[in-house]
Amino acid sequence: MDRTLKLTVAYDGTNYHGFQRQSNALAIQEVLEKRLPKVFGHSIKINGAARTDSGVHAYGQVITFSTTGLIPADKIPQATKTILPDDIVITRAEEVASDFHARFSAKSKIYIYRLHVSELPNPFQRNYTWHMRKKPNVLDMHQAIQVIIGEHDFSTFRAAGGAPINPVRTMLNAACFQDNEIVEVMIHGTGFLYHMVRNIVGTLVNVGWGRITVLEFEKILAGRNRALAGITAPPQGLYLKEVFY
Amino acid sequence: MDRTLKLTVAYDGTNYHGFQRQSNALAIQEVLEKRLPKVFGHSIKINGAARTDSGVHAYGQVITFSTTGLIPADKIPQATKTILPDDIVITRAEEVASDFHARFSAKSKIYIYRLHVSELPNPFQRNYTWHMRKKPNVLDMHQAIQVIIGEHDFSTFRAAGGAPINPVRTMLNAACFQDNEIVEVMIHGTGFLYHMVRNIVGTLVNVGWGRITVLEFEKILAGRNRALAGITAPPQGLYLKEVFY
Repeated sequence: MDRTLKLTVAYDGTNYHGFQRQSNALAIQEVLEKRLPKVFGHSIKINGAARTDSGVHAYGQVITFSTTGLIPADKIPQATKTILPDDIVITRAEEVASDFHARFSAKSKIYIYRLHVSELPNPFQRNYTWHMRKKPNVLDMHQAIQVIIGEHDFSTFRAAGGAPINPVRTMLNAACFQDNEIVEVMIHGTGFLYHMVRNIVGTLVNVGWGRITVLEFEKILAGRNRALAGITAPPQGLYLKEVFY
Repeated sequence: MDRTLKLTVAYDGTNYHGFQRQSNALAIQEVLEKRLPKVFGHSIKINGAARTDSGVHAYGQVITFSTTGLIPADKIPQATKTILPDDIVITRAEEVASDFHARFSAKSKIYIYRLHVSELPNPFQRNYTWHMRKKPNVLDMHQAIQVIIGEHDFSTFRAAGGAPINPVRTMLNAACFQDNEIVEVMIHGTGFLYHMVRNIVGTLVNVGWGRITVLEFEKILAGRNRALAGITAPPQGLYLKEVFY
Protein backbone atom coordinates (compact mmCIF):
# COMPACT_ATOMS: atom_id res chain seq x y z
CA MET A 1 0.00 0.00 0.00
CA ASP A 2 1.20 3.50 -0.76
CA ARG A 3 2.43 5.60 2.12
CA THR A 4 2.97 9.35 2.03
CA LEU A 5 6.24 10.41 3.61
CA LYS A 6 7.30 13.80 4.90
CA LEU A 7 11.07 14.31 5.03
CA THR A 8 12.91 17.25 6.52
CA VAL A 9 16.00 18.13 4.50
CA ALA A 10 19.02 20.27 5.44
CA TYR A 11 21.30 21.36 2.65
CA ASP A 12 24.23 23.57 1.86
CA GLY A 13 23.02 25.22 -1.34
CA THR A 14 26.47 26.44 -2.42
CA ASN A 15 26.95 23.88 -5.16
CA TYR A 16 23.37 23.75 -6.47
CA HIS A 17 21.22 25.82 -8.76
CA GLY A 18 18.44 26.05 -6.22
CA PHE A 19 15.92 23.53 -5.02
CA GLN A 20 13.66 23.19 -8.01
CA ARG A 21 14.55 20.85 -10.86
CA GLN A 22 15.90 22.64 -13.92
CA SER A 23 16.73 21.47 -17.38
CA ASN A 24 20.18 23.03 -17.61
CA ALA A 25 21.72 22.91 -14.13
CA LEU A 26 21.83 20.64 -11.10
CA ALA A 27 19.13 21.32 -8.52
CA ILE A 28 18.58 19.71 -5.13
CA GLN A 29 15.25 18.23 -6.22
CA GLU A 30 16.99 16.38 -9.04
CA VAL A 31 19.59 14.91 -6.68
CA LEU A 32 16.87 13.72 -4.30
CA GLU A 33 14.74 12.24 -7.08
CA LYS A 34 17.77 10.44 -8.53
CA ARG A 35 19.16 9.08 -5.27
CA LEU A 36 16.13 8.32 -3.08
CA PRO A 37 14.95 5.47 -5.34
CA LYS A 38 17.95 3.46 -4.07
CA VAL A 39 16.25 3.30 -0.68
CA PHE A 40 12.62 3.11 -1.80
CA GLY A 41 12.98 0.81 -4.80
CA HIS A 42 11.02 2.86 -7.32
CA SER A 43 11.14 6.23 -9.04
CA ILE A 44 10.00 9.13 -6.92
CA LYS A 45 8.42 12.51 -7.63
CA ILE A 46 8.83 14.88 -4.72
CA ASN A 47 7.02 18.04 -3.69
CA GLY A 48 9.02 20.68 -1.84
CA ALA A 49 7.66 23.19 0.67
CA ALA A 50 9.59 26.10 -0.86
CA ARG A 51 11.71 26.90 -3.85
CA THR A 52 15.09 28.13 -2.74
CA ASP A 53 17.37 29.95 -5.19
CA SER A 54 20.86 29.10 -6.30
CA GLY A 55 23.23 29.39 -3.33
CA VAL A 56 20.42 29.57 -0.75
CA HIS A 57 20.57 27.07 2.12
CA ALA A 58 18.08 25.12 4.21
CA TYR A 59 18.02 23.77 7.72
CA GLY A 60 14.48 22.56 7.38
CA GLN A 61 13.21 22.23 3.83
CA VAL A 62 10.32 19.77 3.73
CA ILE A 63 9.52 17.32 0.95
CA THR A 64 6.65 14.89 0.55
CA PHE A 65 6.21 11.95 -1.78
CA SER A 66 4.32 8.74 -2.16
CA THR A 67 6.07 5.40 -1.83
CA THR A 68 5.47 1.68 -1.82
CA GLY A 69 8.86 1.18 -0.15
CA LEU A 70 8.78 -0.68 3.15
CA ILE A 71 11.53 1.05 5.10
CA PRO A 72 10.27 2.33 8.48
CA ALA A 73 10.19 6.15 8.58
CA ASP A 74 12.57 6.39 11.54
CA LYS A 75 15.27 4.46 9.64
CA ILE A 76 15.25 6.83 6.67
CA PRO A 77 17.72 9.50 7.93
CA GLN A 78 20.50 6.96 8.52
CA ALA A 79 19.59 4.88 5.44
CA THR A 80 19.78 7.89 3.11
CA LYS A 81 23.05 9.18 4.58
CA THR A 82 25.27 7.12 2.32
CA ILE A 83 23.24 7.50 -0.87
CA LEU A 84 23.09 11.30 -0.74
CA PRO A 85 26.00 13.71 -1.27
CA ASP A 86 27.23 15.10 2.05
CA ASP A 87 25.81 18.57 1.41
CA ILE A 88 22.24 17.20 1.51
CA VAL A 89 21.06 15.49 4.70
CA ILE A 90 17.65 14.04 5.60
CA THR A 91 17.25 15.06 9.24
CA ARG A 92 13.81 13.64 9.93
CA ALA A 93 11.19 11.42 8.33
CA GLU A 94 7.61 10.64 9.25
CA GLU A 95 4.55 9.09 7.73
CA VAL A 96 1.68 11.52 7.02
CA ALA A 97 -1.86 11.39 5.70
CA SER A 98 -2.15 10.81 1.95
CA ASP A 99 -3.50 14.32 1.35
CA PHE A 100 -0.59 15.99 3.15
CA HIS A 101 1.45 18.13 0.72
CA ALA A 102 4.80 19.75 1.51
CA ARG A 103 3.82 23.02 -0.12
CA PHE A 104 0.04 23.27 0.06
CA SER A 105 -0.26 22.00 3.63
CA ALA A 106 2.37 24.45 4.94
CA LYS A 107 0.95 27.05 7.32
CA SER A 108 4.04 29.22 7.69
CA LYS A 109 7.79 29.35 7.19
CA ILE A 110 10.76 30.91 8.94
CA TYR A 111 13.61 32.30 6.90
CA ILE A 112 16.80 33.68 8.39
CA TYR A 113 19.37 35.87 6.73
CA ARG A 114 22.93 36.21 8.03
CA LEU A 115 25.22 39.20 7.62
CA HIS A 116 28.89 39.02 8.52
CA VAL A 117 30.14 42.38 9.75
CA SER A 118 33.91 42.74 9.92
CA GLU A 119 36.78 44.80 8.59
CA LEU A 120 37.95 41.83 6.51
CA PRO A 121 36.01 38.90 5.08
CA ASN A 122 36.31 35.48 6.72
CA PRO A 123 37.09 32.70 4.23
CA PHE A 124 34.93 30.27 6.21
CA GLN A 125 31.89 32.56 6.01
CA ARG A 126 32.06 33.34 2.32
CA ASN A 127 29.35 30.91 1.22
CA TYR A 128 27.17 31.39 4.30
CA THR A 129 26.82 35.14 4.94
CA TRP A 130 26.74 38.52 3.26
CA HIS A 131 29.97 40.25 4.23
CA MET A 132 29.99 43.97 4.98
CA ARG A 133 32.64 46.25 6.51
CA LYS A 134 30.30 49.01 7.64
CA LYS A 135 28.76 48.25 11.03
CA PRO A 136 24.97 48.50 10.99
CA ASN A 137 22.87 49.72 13.92
CA VAL A 138 21.10 46.46 14.69
CA LEU A 139 18.57 47.98 17.09
CA ASP A 140 17.40 50.33 14.32
CA MET A 141 17.15 47.35 11.96
CA HIS A 142 15.15 45.43 14.55
CA GLN A 143 12.81 48.37 15.03
CA ALA A 144 12.35 48.84 11.28
CA ILE A 145 11.56 45.22 10.53
CA GLN A 146 8.73 45.23 13.07
CA VAL A 147 6.68 47.16 10.49
CA ILE A 148 6.43 44.13 8.20
CA ILE A 149 4.53 42.16 10.86
CA GLY A 150 0.88 41.70 9.95
CA GLU A 151 -0.86 41.64 6.58
CA HIS A 152 0.70 43.92 3.97
CA ASP A 153 0.97 44.42 0.26
CA PHE A 154 4.64 43.50 -0.28
CA SER A 155 4.90 44.81 -3.88
CA THR A 156 7.91 46.89 -2.80
CA PHE A 157 9.84 43.75 -1.96
CA ARG A 158 8.79 41.44 -4.76
CA ALA A 159 11.19 40.51 -7.54
CA ALA A 160 11.16 42.94 -10.45
CA GLY A 161 9.31 41.42 -13.37
CA GLY A 162 7.67 38.73 -11.27
CA ALA A 163 4.34 37.16 -12.19
CA PRO A 164 1.32 39.40 -11.41
CA ILE A 165 0.12 37.40 -8.44
CA ASN A 166 -1.55 38.84 -5.37
CA PRO A 167 1.27 40.61 -3.47
CA VAL A 168 -0.47 40.53 -0.08
CA ARG A 169 1.28 38.36 2.50
CA THR A 170 1.07 37.99 6.26
CA MET A 171 4.14 38.11 8.47
CA LEU A 172 3.75 36.60 11.95
CA ASN A 173 7.06 37.72 13.43
CA ALA A 174 10.29 39.45 12.47
CA ALA A 175 13.44 40.23 14.38
CA CYS A 176 17.03 41.30 13.97
CA PHE A 177 19.80 40.48 16.44
CA GLN A 178 23.55 40.32 16.67
CA ASP A 179 25.97 37.65 17.89
CA ASN A 180 29.51 39.00 17.64
CA GLU A 181 30.25 39.54 13.95
CA ILE A 182 27.04 37.89 12.76
CA VAL A 183 23.80 39.84 12.38
CA GLU A 184 20.76 37.66 11.87
CA VAL A 185 17.44 38.72 10.39
CA MET A 186 14.52 36.37 11.12
CA ILE A 187 11.19 36.52 9.29
CA HIS A 188 8.27 34.22 10.02
CA GLY A 189 5.43 34.47 7.53
CA THR A 190 2.53 32.51 6.09
CA GLY A 191 3.83 33.04 2.57
CA PHE A 192 6.54 34.89 0.69
CA LEU A 193 6.92 36.50 -2.73
CA TYR A 194 9.89 35.63 -4.92
CA HIS A 195 13.07 37.36 -3.58
CA MET A 196 11.02 38.98 -0.84
CA VAL A 197 13.32 38.19 2.10
CA ARG A 198 16.45 39.18 0.19
CA ASN A 199 14.81 42.44 -0.94
CA ILE A 200 13.72 43.23 2.61
CA VAL A 201 17.25 42.59 3.89
CA GLY A 202 18.78 44.70 1.10
CA THR A 203 16.61 47.62 2.22
CA LEU A 204 16.96 46.93 5.93
CA VAL A 205 20.75 47.36 5.83
CA ASN A 206 20.15 50.91 4.63
CA VAL A 207 18.35 51.49 7.92
CA GLY A 208 21.26 49.89 9.75
CA TRP A 209 23.74 52.15 8.00
CA GLY A 210 21.69 55.27 8.73
CA ARG A 211 20.93 55.94 5.07
CA ILE A 212 17.19 55.79 5.71
CA THR A 213 15.18 56.08 8.91
CA VAL A 214 12.80 53.54 10.39
CA LEU A 215 9.95 55.80 9.29
CA GLU A 216 11.29 55.86 5.74
CA PHE A 217 11.50 52.06 5.76
CA GLU A 218 7.84 52.00 6.71
CA LYS A 219 7.00 54.39 3.88
CA ILE A 220 8.97 52.27 1.41
CA LEU A 221 6.86 49.24 2.33
CA ALA A 222 3.67 51.32 2.10
CA GLY A 223 4.77 52.72 -1.30
CA ARG A 224 4.19 49.31 -2.93
CA ASN A 225 6.84 50.04 -5.54
CA ARG A 226 9.92 47.89 -6.17
CA ALA A 227 11.88 50.98 -7.24
CA LEU A 228 11.77 52.29 -3.67
CA ALA A 229 13.55 49.28 -2.17
CA GLY A 230 17.27 48.62 -1.84
CA ILE A 231 19.28 45.94 -3.58
CA THR A 232 18.49 42.25 -3.49
CA ALA A 233 20.76 40.84 -0.78
CA PRO A 234 23.01 38.07 -2.16
CA PRO A 235 21.70 34.49 -1.93
CA GLN A 236 24.37 32.88 0.26
CA GLY A 237 23.15 34.60 3.45
CA LEU A 238 19.64 33.13 3.18
CA TYR A 239 18.41 29.99 4.96
CA LEU A 240 15.01 28.30 4.97
CA LYS A 241 14.94 27.60 8.70
CA GLU A 242 11.66 25.81 9.34
CA VAL A 243 8.31 25.02 7.79
CA PHE A 244 5.25 24.77 10.02
CA TYR A 245 2.16 22.65 9.34
CA MET B 1 64.98 49.34 -1.20
CA ASP B 2 63.78 45.83 -0.48
CA ARG B 3 61.46 45.29 2.43
CA THR B 4 60.66 41.96 4.03
CA LEU B 5 56.95 41.51 4.70
CA LYS B 6 55.20 39.10 7.04
CA LEU B 7 51.59 38.38 6.10
CA THR B 8 49.07 36.40 8.11
CA VAL B 9 46.79 34.35 5.88
CA ALA B 10 43.46 32.69 6.66
CA TYR B 11 42.18 30.14 4.18
CA ASP B 12 39.49 27.58 3.65
CA GLY B 13 41.56 24.69 2.31
CA THR B 14 38.59 22.78 0.88
CA ASN B 15 39.31 23.60 -2.74
CA TYR B 16 43.11 23.39 -2.65
CA HIS B 17 45.72 20.66 -2.72
CA GLY B 18 47.42 21.99 0.38
CA PHE B 19 49.60 24.99 0.96
CA GLN B 20 52.78 24.01 -0.84
CA ARG B 21 53.13 24.56 -4.56
CA GLN B 22 52.74 21.37 -6.61
CA SER B 23 53.26 20.60 -10.24
CA ASN B 24 49.97 18.82 -10.83
CA ALA B 25 47.35 20.50 -8.62
CA LEU B 26 46.42 23.94 -7.36
CA ALA B 27 48.01 24.88 -4.04
CA ILE B 28 47.52 27.99 -1.93
CA GLN B 29 51.14 29.04 -2.39
CA GLU B 30 50.65 29.09 -6.15
CA VAL B 31 47.55 31.29 -5.88
CA LEU B 32 49.39 33.74 -3.62
CA GLU B 33 52.48 33.84 -5.86
CA LYS B 34 50.29 34.40 -8.94
CA ARG B 35 48.01 37.05 -7.46
CA LEU B 36 50.16 39.09 -5.06
CA PRO B 37 52.31 40.55 -7.89
CA LYS B 38 49.26 42.62 -8.88
CA VAL B 39 49.70 44.59 -5.68
CA PHE B 40 53.50 44.55 -5.41
CA GLY B 41 54.40 45.03 -9.06
CA HIS B 42 56.90 42.20 -9.41
CA SER B 43 57.08 38.43 -9.16
CA ILE B 44 57.13 37.07 -5.64
CA LYS B 45 58.54 33.96 -4.01
CA ILE B 46 56.95 33.30 -0.65
CA ASN B 47 58.01 31.23 2.34
CA GLY B 48 55.26 29.68 4.44
CA ALA B 49 55.43 28.86 8.15
CA ALA B 50 53.88 25.42 7.70
CA ARG B 51 52.83 23.05 4.99
CA THR B 52 49.18 22.21 5.33
CA ASP B 53 47.72 19.23 3.50
CA SER B 54 44.92 19.09 0.98
CA GLY B 55 41.67 20.09 2.69
CA VAL B 56 43.40 21.46 5.81
CA HIS B 57 42.50 25.03 6.83
CA ALA B 58 44.31 27.97 8.39
CA TYR B 59 43.26 30.87 10.56
CA GLY B 60 46.82 32.09 10.89
CA GLN B 61 49.25 30.73 8.32
CA VAL B 62 52.23 33.09 8.01
CA ILE B 63 54.14 33.91 4.84
CA THR B 64 57.19 36.09 4.31
CA PHE B 65 58.68 37.53 1.14
CA SER B 66 60.87 40.30 -0.09
CA THR B 67 59.41 43.18 -2.08
CA THR B 68 60.32 46.47 -3.70
CA GLY B 69 56.63 47.39 -3.75
CA LEU B 70 55.75 50.65 -2.01
CA ILE B 71 52.34 49.83 -0.54
CA PRO B 72 52.26 50.52 3.23
CA ALA B 73 51.94 47.28 5.22
CA ASP B 74 48.70 48.30 6.89
CA LYS B 75 47.01 48.78 3.50
CA ILE B 76 47.82 45.26 2.32
CA PRO B 77 44.84 43.35 3.80
CA GLN B 78 42.28 45.58 2.07
CA ALA B 79 44.35 45.92 -1.12
CA THR B 80 44.69 42.16 -1.56
CA LYS B 81 41.02 41.47 -0.87
CA THR B 82 39.90 41.94 -4.45
CA ILE B 83 42.85 40.20 -6.13
CA LEU B 84 42.60 37.00 -4.09
CA PRO B 85 39.83 34.39 -4.32
CA ASP B 86 37.42 34.71 -1.42
CA ASP B 87 38.62 31.53 0.28
CA ILE B 88 42.07 33.10 0.90
CA VAL B 89 42.23 36.26 3.03
CA ILE B 90 45.25 38.28 4.18
CA THR B 91 44.29 39.23 7.72
CA ARG B 92 47.41 41.12 8.76
CA ALA B 93 50.61 42.50 7.28
CA GLU B 94 53.71 43.96 8.87
CA GLU B 95 57.25 44.84 7.93
CA VAL B 96 59.93 42.67 9.55
CA ALA B 97 63.73 42.45 9.63
CA SER B 98 65.32 41.13 6.44
CA ASP B 99 66.46 37.92 8.15
CA PHE B 100 62.97 37.09 9.41
CA HIS B 101 61.70 33.86 7.83
CA ALA B 102 58.14 32.54 8.11
CA ARG B 103 59.32 29.00 8.75
CA PHE B 104 62.77 29.21 10.32
CA SER B 105 61.95 32.11 12.66
CA ALA B 106 58.81 30.38 14.00
CA LYS B 107 59.08 29.44 17.68
CA SER B 108 55.87 27.45 17.99
CA LYS B 109 52.51 26.74 16.37
CA ILE B 110 49.01 25.99 17.54
CA TYR B 111 46.89 23.50 15.61
CA ILE B 112 43.28 22.75 16.39
CA TYR B 113 41.24 19.80 15.26
CA ARG B 114 37.43 19.79 15.26
CA LEU B 115 35.16 16.79 15.63
CA HIS B 116 31.43 17.06 15.01
CA VAL B 117 29.52 14.65 17.22
CA SER B 118 25.90 14.07 16.25
CA GLU B 119 23.48 11.37 15.23
CA LEU B 120 23.37 12.80 11.71
CA PRO B 121 25.95 14.81 9.78
CA ASN B 122 25.44 18.54 9.31
CA PRO B 123 25.80 19.65 5.67
CA PHE B 124 27.38 22.94 6.80
CA GLN B 125 30.08 21.13 8.79
CA ARG B 126 31.09 18.61 6.16
CA ASN B 127 34.24 20.42 5.02
CA TYR B 128 35.18 21.74 8.46
CA THR B 129 34.94 18.84 10.93
CA TRP B 130 35.27 15.08 11.27
CA HIS B 131 31.76 13.79 11.81
CA MET B 132 31.13 10.94 14.24
CA ARG B 133 27.93 9.47 15.68
CA LYS B 134 29.47 7.86 18.75
CA LYS B 135 29.84 10.34 21.61
CA PRO B 136 33.37 10.45 22.99
CA ASN B 137 34.21 11.04 26.65
CA VAL B 138 35.91 14.40 26.27
CA LEU B 139 37.33 14.50 29.80
CA ASP B 140 39.14 11.22 29.14
CA MET B 141 40.47 12.66 25.88
CA HIS B 142 41.64 15.77 27.69
CA GLN B 143 43.38 13.68 30.32
CA ALA B 144 45.04 11.47 27.70
CA ILE B 145 46.37 14.30 25.59
CA GLN B 146 48.15 15.81 28.59
CA VAL B 147 50.78 13.06 28.18
CA ILE B 148 52.07 14.57 24.93
CA ILE B 149 53.12 17.78 26.73
CA GLY B 150 56.89 18.07 27.01
CA GLU B 151 59.68 16.61 24.89
CA HIS B 152 58.87 13.21 23.39
CA ASP B 153 59.86 10.91 20.58
CA PHE B 154 56.70 11.10 18.45
CA SER B 155 57.55 8.18 16.12
CA THR B 156 54.18 6.62 16.99
CA PHE B 157 52.37 9.56 15.45
CA ARG B 158 54.52 10.28 12.42
CA ALA B 159 53.31 9.51 8.92
CA ALA B 160 54.08 5.98 7.79
CA GLY B 161 56.97 6.03 5.35
CA GLY B 162 58.04 9.54 6.26
CA ALA B 163 61.61 10.76 5.88
CA PRO B 164 63.97 9.49 8.63
CA ILE B 165 64.26 12.82 10.44
CA ASN B 166 64.64 13.22 14.19
CA PRO B 167 61.20 12.35 15.62
CA VAL B 168 61.67 14.27 18.88
CA ARG B 169 59.36 17.25 19.28
CA THR B 170 58.30 19.45 22.17
CA MET B 171 54.67 20.14 22.95
CA LEU B 172 53.98 23.19 25.12
CA ASN B 173 50.31 22.64 25.73
CA ALA B 174 47.44 20.38 24.72
CA ALA B 175 43.76 20.35 25.55
CA CYS B 176 40.45 18.89 24.53
CA PHE B 177 37.10 20.56 25.16
CA GLN B 178 33.52 20.47 24.00
CA ASP B 179 31.10 23.14 22.83
CA ASN B 180 27.75 21.53 22.09
CA GLU B 181 28.26 19.18 19.14
CA ILE B 182 31.83 20.31 18.48
CA VAL B 183 34.81 18.72 20.24
CA GLU B 184 38.03 20.65 19.78
CA VAL B 185 41.53 19.30 20.26
CA MET B 186 44.23 21.97 20.68
CA ILE B 187 47.95 21.24 20.42
CA HIS B 188 50.65 23.88 20.87
CA GLY B 189 54.13 22.70 19.96
CA THR B 190 57.52 23.95 18.82
CA GLY B 191 57.45 21.65 15.82
CA PHE B 192 55.39 18.86 14.32
CA LEU B 193 56.04 15.75 12.26
CA TYR B 194 54.08 15.14 9.06
CA HIS B 195 50.49 14.00 9.89
CA MET B 196 51.33 14.14 13.60
CA VAL B 197 48.25 16.07 14.76
CA ARG B 198 45.89 13.97 12.66
CA ASN B 199 47.50 10.75 13.91
CA ILE B 200 47.24 11.92 17.53
CA VAL B 201 43.56 12.77 17.02
CA GLY B 202 42.88 9.44 15.31
CA THR B 203 44.26 7.67 18.38
CA LEU B 204 42.72 10.05 20.90
CA VAL B 205 39.19 9.28 19.73
CA ASN B 206 39.82 5.66 20.74
CA VAL B 207 40.32 6.96 24.27
CA GLY B 208 37.12 8.99 23.95
CA TRP B 209 35.19 5.93 22.81
CA GLY B 210 36.58 3.79 25.64
CA ARG B 211 38.47 1.47 23.31
CA ILE B 212 41.76 2.26 25.01
CA THR B 213 42.52 3.77 28.40
CA VAL B 214 44.48 6.92 29.16
CA LEU B 215 47.31 4.70 30.36
CA GLU B 216 47.26 2.77 27.09
CA PHE B 217 47.41 6.04 25.17
CA GLU B 218 50.53 6.91 27.15
CA LYS B 219 52.05 3.52 26.34
CA ILE B 220 51.24 3.94 22.66
CA LEU B 221 53.19 7.23 22.61
CA ALA B 222 56.05 5.61 24.55
CA GLY B 223 56.06 2.64 22.14
CA ARG B 224 57.47 4.80 19.34
CA ASN B 225 55.81 2.63 16.73
CA ARG B 226 53.34 3.91 14.10
CA ALA B 227 51.60 0.53 14.09
CA LEU B 228 50.36 1.17 17.65
CA ALA B 229 48.46 4.34 16.74
CA GLY B 230 44.93 4.73 15.43
CA ILE B 231 43.89 6.01 12.02
CA THR B 232 44.95 9.32 10.53
CA ALA B 233 42.03 11.67 11.23
CA PRO B 234 40.66 13.17 7.99
CA PRO B 235 42.14 16.50 6.86
CA GLN B 236 39.04 18.73 6.90
CA GLY B 237 38.93 18.92 10.72
CA LEU B 238 42.45 20.39 10.99
CA TYR B 239 43.29 24.09 11.27
CA LEU B 240 46.63 25.88 11.60
CA LYS B 241 45.48 28.33 14.26
CA GLU B 242 48.49 30.51 15.02
CA VAL B 243 52.24 30.73 14.53
CA PHE B 244 54.35 32.35 17.24
CA TYR B 245 57.69 34.13 16.72
